Parts: sequence; C-alpha cells; structure tokens
Amino acid sequence: MVGMTYPVVLVGGGPGAWDLVTLRGARALENADIIFTDHLGPTAELDRIIEVANKEIVDVSKLPYGKSVAQEEINRLLVEAAQAGKRVARLKGGDPYIFGRGYEELEALAAQGIACEVIPGVSSATAVPAAAGIPLTHRGVVHSFTVVSGHLAPDNPKSLTDWAALSRLAQRGTTVAVIMGVRHVAAISRALIDAGLAPNTPAAAISEGTTARQNVVRATASTLPDAMASHGISAPAVYVFGQVASFGS
Amino acid sequence: MVGMTYPVVLVGGGPGAWDLVTLRGARALENADIIFTDHLGPTAELDRIIEVANKEIVDVSKLPYGKSVAQEEINRLLVEAAQAGKRVARLKGGDPYIFGRGYEELEALAAQGIACEVIPGVSSATAVPAAAGIPLTHRGVVHSFTVVSGHLAPDNPKSLTDWAALSRLAQRGTTVAVIMGVRHVAAISRALIDAGLAPNTPAAAISEGTTARQNVVRATASTLPDAMASHGISAPAVYVFGQVASFGS
Repeated sequence: MVGMTYPVVLVGGGPGAWDLVTLRGARALENADIIFTDHLGPTAELDRIIEVANKEIVDVSKLPYGKSVAQEEINRLLVEAAQAGKRVARLKGGDPYIFGRGYEELEALAAQGIACEVIPGVSSATAVPAAAGIPLTHRGVVHSFTVVSGHLAPDNPKSLTDWAALSRLAQRGTTVAVIMGVRHVAAISRALIDAGLAPNTPAAAISEGTTARQNVVRATASTLPDAMASHGISAPAVYVFGQVASFGS
Repeated sequence: MVGMTYPVVLVGGGPGAWDLVTLRGARALENADIIFTDHLGPTAELDRIIEVANKEIVDVSKLPYGKSVAQEEINRLLVEAAQAGKRVARLKGGDPYIFGRGYEELEALAAQGIACEVIPGVSSATAVPAAAGIPLTHRGVVHSFTVVSGHLAPDNPKSLTDWAALSRLAQRGTTVAVIMGVRHVAAISRALIDAGLAPNTPAAAISEGTTARQNVVRATASTLPDAMASHGISAPAVYVFGQVASFGS
C-alpha cells in the first residue's frame, strides 16, 4: 500500500559555490528527509547550506565522461523514496531545466502520480562566464546569446544544432556559450569558423567556475582549442565566443 | 577628499519572487548601508529578504516604456554613495549580466577607481518559462536555446539580431526565448515565420512570472501576437518559440 507522498522538489543548486543557491532552494534542502545529489553544483559544500546530520544523502553522480547511474535508476530512486513517505529533494547543478534533465524526472514522477516542484537555479552557462568577468550581453554590442550543448560533434548525425546558422548569428554579434563541449572544442571552433566566423573573434574558457579551483583562459575562436589544452581546462567547463569574451581581462 | 570606499555589489535579484535571490545576494543586501533598486526582481518584497529599517533604499526604476532615470544618473549615484564611504548594493532583476546593464555600471565604477563585485542571479529568461512548466532544454528534443532582446523590431537598422539565422536555428530545434519584446511580438513572429519557421510551432508567453500575478498563454508562432493581446500579457514578459512551449500545459 502506498501512503501519503510529498511532492518531490527539484532544486537548482547553481554553478558551484555553495552560497549561489537560492533562499527557496536552501529551504527545500533544509526541509528534506533525503537529498539526491550530483557531483555538480554545491554538493561538496552541502554542509555549509544546511545541517546534514539527520538527512539521508544519496550521490547519484554522473561524471561527464565516466560511469553513470542511469537516469532510469535515478527516477526509480526518486519514486521509491517519495512513495515511502519521505520528503525528497533532488539537488542539481545549475538550473534543473537548463540541460539538467529536470523535465525527464518530472515526467517520471508524474507517471507514478507524484507531484513535482521545480526551483530554478543560477545556470552555470551564464554565471560561470560572469565569474570570469564576462557578461553574455552588453548594451549596444550584444542583443542575444545562445547556450548550446557541445556534447555531440557538429558532424554527428544526432546533432540537433545548425552550427552554420549559429555562426551567422555570432557574426552579427550573438554571444555563443558552449557547455559540455570540452571534448569537441576543436570541431566546434572549426565549424563556426568554416561558416564565416572571424578566426580572431574573442573566445574564453572557464572550468570549475565560481569555485576555488576556477581556471580561465582567453583566446580567439581559432586558438581556443590549443589554449584550453595548454591551460588544462577540463570538464566541467564553459566556453564563450564573442566580443564579450575579451571583457574583464 | 575621498575616503575609503567599499566595493559596490551588483546583486542579481532573480525573476521576481523574493526567495529566488541567492544566499550570497541576500547577505550582500543585509550588509549594505544603501540599496539602489529597480522595479523588477524582488524589490517589492525586499522586506521579506532583509530588515530594511536601517537602510537607505533608493528606487531608480526604469519602466520598459515609461519614464527613466538615465543610466548615467544611476552610475553617478552609485559612485557618489561609494565615495561617501557607504556600503552600496545595486539590486537588479534577474542577472546583472543578462540584459541587466551590469557591465556598464561596473565600467562606470571602475573609471572612478571603485571596485565592483557581481553576484549572479536567476535569469528571468530561463526561470519565467520554467515557472510556467516550460524547460528551455529537453534531452533529445532541444540541445540549445537562444535568449534575445526584442526591444527593437527586426527591421530596425539598429537591430543586431540576424532573425533569419535565428529562424533556421529554431527550425532545427533551438528554443528561442524573447525578453523585452511585448511591443514587437507581431513583427518578431512574422520574421521567424517568413524565414521558414513553421507557423504551428508551439509558442507561449508569460508575464510577471514567478509572482502571484503570473499570467500564461499558450499559442503557436502564428497565433502568439493575438493570444498575448487577448490574454492581457504586458511587460515584463517572456515569450518562447519551440517544442518545449507546449510542455507543462
């Protein structure tokens, strides 16, 4: 028999630093009996946000290129905990709905009749460049920005991104921020340049932004791949193409 | 003689609800002697975040289409307060670097030798759709999203946006979120459709998202302008084109 269930709360944990979670997110974590965490976001400093002693903390880390607990298993764990009557929080890096698979978890919960509250978070895609002094927009210079997942190479048949069109946008001034794209930076830079982006367009890459291990490198669209390699930029990282990538340096 | 100055803190206040400010942002507000506010973000509920009694609160509201205190005057006020030795916080809606003119204020302060700390916030562009159940990304459906300012019509010579290229991106699945674009929604929808976006592409608009006055309307790319008008969607609002605009309804 299934007893009363509380809504599961998906908490956007922000880009990394513990105090970039929202007040609402912190309260949801405080009220939870069990917290499912990623390795991203403020997980490593969870004890600075809340008293963790009386809580169950379950790490379901999915390293970008390492072993993973399948999303199906995460969904199953969330459902099971909620159906056991626990107050469940799912702590995610960044924002649950910005490449956070939050909607998948919401759907899995809804399929079992479990309600879900989504608490937005500060997205790494915007806050990590900011931490390096790079605004994604700047009046009179940039009227738009695109955030794109770089987890597939541009020539991968499964890619949903029109890189040539994105290059055209960038040529007119749109800032392009790439997340989950360390592995494919050479192919991505090349695709943008081949479609007309000036090779000397400013670019920058930031790994582990907002944390004590933040690492920043400035380059251009053509030199970014080598610059990232020589500066040891590894995942999780964000890289940016556009005039703003030269700001704050 | 200019005495000691504290760094001015630009605080991203989030999309509207008071408890969507970050812990770091709340602490900066608590530590301030004087707070310069907009009408956006959590300004109306500032007293739920901090004890305001002993603070100087200065409203520099810039309504989207109404009277404005010129940015130069805001910059001057920030410099003046900092040079008077006050701990200054500048509370902004959303994120200071996402159409927030944060970098302009940083530059104005830097020109006077005043340091500036930027605290990121939850951007309205991402959190307002989320509050209506719309994720800007969804695995297997959307690998990218573009946030674009709609404050200029597509045919305005000052526009920096290649709307035809943006339409091409959207045709492949990129979500397009438009902020500050209520006035020009008809021209923007038309520009996207004229460049090939299917008229029946899902669309949605949300005004005053995350607040008690949140107002949501679902439509398609072609029906959005009329739907917004008939549902009384007015600024501040965000509208979205893409498959995800049909989610959560």
